[in-house]
Amino acid sequence: LSIEEVEVAPPKAHEVRVKIVATGICRTDDHVLKGAFPNIDYPVIAGHEGAGIIECVGPEVTCVKPGDKVIPLCVPQCGECSCCLSPKANCCLTSHLCESQNLMPDKTSRFSCKGKQIHHFLWISTFSEYTVMPDSAIARIDAAAPLDKVCLFGCAFSTGYGAAINTVEPGSTCAVFGLGGVGLSVVMGCKAAGASRIIGIDINKDKFGKAKELGVTECINPQDFTKPIQEVLVEMTGHGVDYSFEVTGCTDTLMAALLSCHLGYGTCVLVGEPPSGSQISFDPLLLFTGRQWKASLIGGWKLKDSLPKLVSDYMNKKCNPDALITHTLPFDKINEGFELLWAGKR
Amino acid sequence: LSIEEVEVAPPKAHEVRVKIVATGICRTDDHVLKGAFPNIDYPVIAGHEGAGIIECVGPEVTCVKPGDKVIPLCVPQCGECSCCLSPKANCCLTSHLCESQNLMPDKTSRFSCKGKQIHHFLWISTFSEYTVMPDSAIARIDAAAPLDKVCLFGCAFSTGYGAAINTVEPGSTCAVFGLGGVGLSVVMGCKAAGASRIIGIDINKDKFGKAKELGVTECINPQDFTKPIQEVLVEMTGHGVDYSFEVTGCTDTLMAALLSCHLGYGTCVLVGEPPSGSQISFDPLLLFTGRQWKASLIGGWKLKDSLPKLVSDYMNKKCNPDALITHTLPFDKINEGFELLWAGKR
Repeated sequence: LSIEEVEVAPPKAHEVRVKIVATGICRTDDHVLKGAFPNIDYPVIAGHEGAGIIECVGPEVTCVKPGDKVIPLCVPQCGECSCCLSPKANCCLTSHLCESQNLMPDKTSRFSCKGKQIHHFLWISTFSEYTVMPDSAIARIDAAAPLDKVCLFGCAFSTGYGAAINTVEPGSTCAVFGLGGVGLSVVMGCKAAGASRIIGIDINKDKFGKAKELGVTECINPQDFTKPIQEVLVEMTGHGVDYSFEVTGCTDTLMAALLSCHLGYGTCVLVGEPPSGSQISFDPLLLFTGRQWKASLIGGWKLKDSLPKLVSDYMNKKCNPDALITHTLPFDKINEGFELLWAGKR
Repeated sequence: LSIEEVEVAPPKAHEVRVKIVATGICRTDDHVLKGAFPNIDYPVIAGHEGAGIIECVGPEVTCVKPGDKVIPLCVPQCGECSCCLSPKANCCLTSHLCESQNLMPDKTSRFSCKGKQIHHFLWISTFSEYTVMPDSAIARIDAAAPLDKVCLFGCAFSTGYGAAINTVEPGSTCAVFGLGGVGLSVVMGCKAAGASRIIGIDINKDKFGKAKELGVTECINPQDFTKPIQEVLVEMTGHGVDYSFEVTGCTDTLMAALLSCHLGYGTCVLVGEPPSGSQISFDPLLLFTGRQWKASLIGGWKLKDSLPKLVSDYMNKKCNPDALITHTLPFDKINEGFELLWAGKR
């Protein structure tokens, strides 16, 4: 990443300009750096896990005003498409899963550098002091919220916590594959949902201490076993877990997570997004055993509706992602942040 | 198939002997003939879609008595395992998905021919005048039920009808891939559930007339289009169907059925069981678009509890699989029945 002086044009109709106060670094940003995110044009300003303050609003914006604290939404909520209108979906048809969010909806950019156009990322580009986004991609939050903490609600925490709390019933047995920031958020969601047993799986033993503090009841390392990890889990639980969460984004782990589920009703929830173009091969008879496979996009939340409530829950101490924050760096050390990510220190 | 004189031993504890009055022929029986059903030992008496009368019962049987009309259950319901105890599952842990049902639970056979042991199939072997099964694999039905009709509740009708009626909400848009007996049962289930639109897909146009009589609103033949059938369906419906049902058991159709679903919340229900050892390859990102993949085993019913109610619904004219019956043959013409199946006449 290089830090450049960028001009940020004023917002057009139904757009807002936001002063970013804090941003997290997510594995998905790393996919952008490495060219493993679909349909990205470069140069681009990445970042999608931020929090900030409305600096100004374009015409026809009614949901926020200058000075409001906000979280930009990496999955927008237009409120009008068939997904936004369905109680079962949160995958807005204006999101990157349908079309590229590399430019504003009018197919132009608000960013330029030395006269050259720079692309947006997921419409929100939080790796910038100022950024412009549609008002469908912004949630107003509690004016007292600490932005350097609640930026995590923009992606990591909401993704993991929601995947669990929107899925798990009290008394369930759960397995969480991958104990990074999102995996630990899954653990917190499982605990909040009343899971009776939460088994954490990681090949990095350094992750086990914090995982246990946050609610994991048993930690296992696949490298400690000669048999496949799914067989270990089936033996530990009788016939498999009620819910397995795949948070690593590795295709091998995906199959292990499905096979760890209880025959008849176990559900494997995909949380970690695999690199673009991945393929997995499986015997469809596996599904006839009653196991289900589903993915959780950003925790299943409709973000514009849900983030204000989640931040209120944080202010009321009902949930707390603070433990996920390992390092706080000034913006000009963003490349050091990525080095920490690669070293597994985050 | 050869027709032989077979000795049928008396039932042991928790077993019953049934005089079979009528049996259907199902594609799964054809898998047995062709060696495409997992873990089968030969010689075997196939058949799993029958109806009959209790001839005698072994010790400790309390749920039926001689003279009762019954339907043998191709998926048992032991009532004690974690799946039977879960409201979410119908895949009893004593079923063939967990262990072979090629012999009675005590690992012996009740069939012998010229002194040689013959194997059971799914514990029920309905291609026999008399057959023995555990009492967990039998449902007592209305004494007035016509056995030559309700034998279809043993597999085809319950499988298709249940996959739809246990899944679809009123007003849904549905697509049914494959319009054979099970596919037509799916159509009847979609209609009974209040689907607003039922699109039938088959490469055999001869199936379209009866499909429309039973509730299909539009019929399409993939061979009439140059583009993939999923693209045709997405165009017909805007963004895809709410529910697609894969009833052919072909792996190519499986992917088409998933891709025909509405982004964000469409669900693909696998009904047709693919041949043992099939593999499909797909990009897991497809699931992140919010589409779900699940299978429906025997319509999702817990059979011992549900079949008596379904047969009552039939007697009260709430459902009617009679239209699925294309031919009625005497038992000694069973090989002609298979020829009709292969010719697509059934």
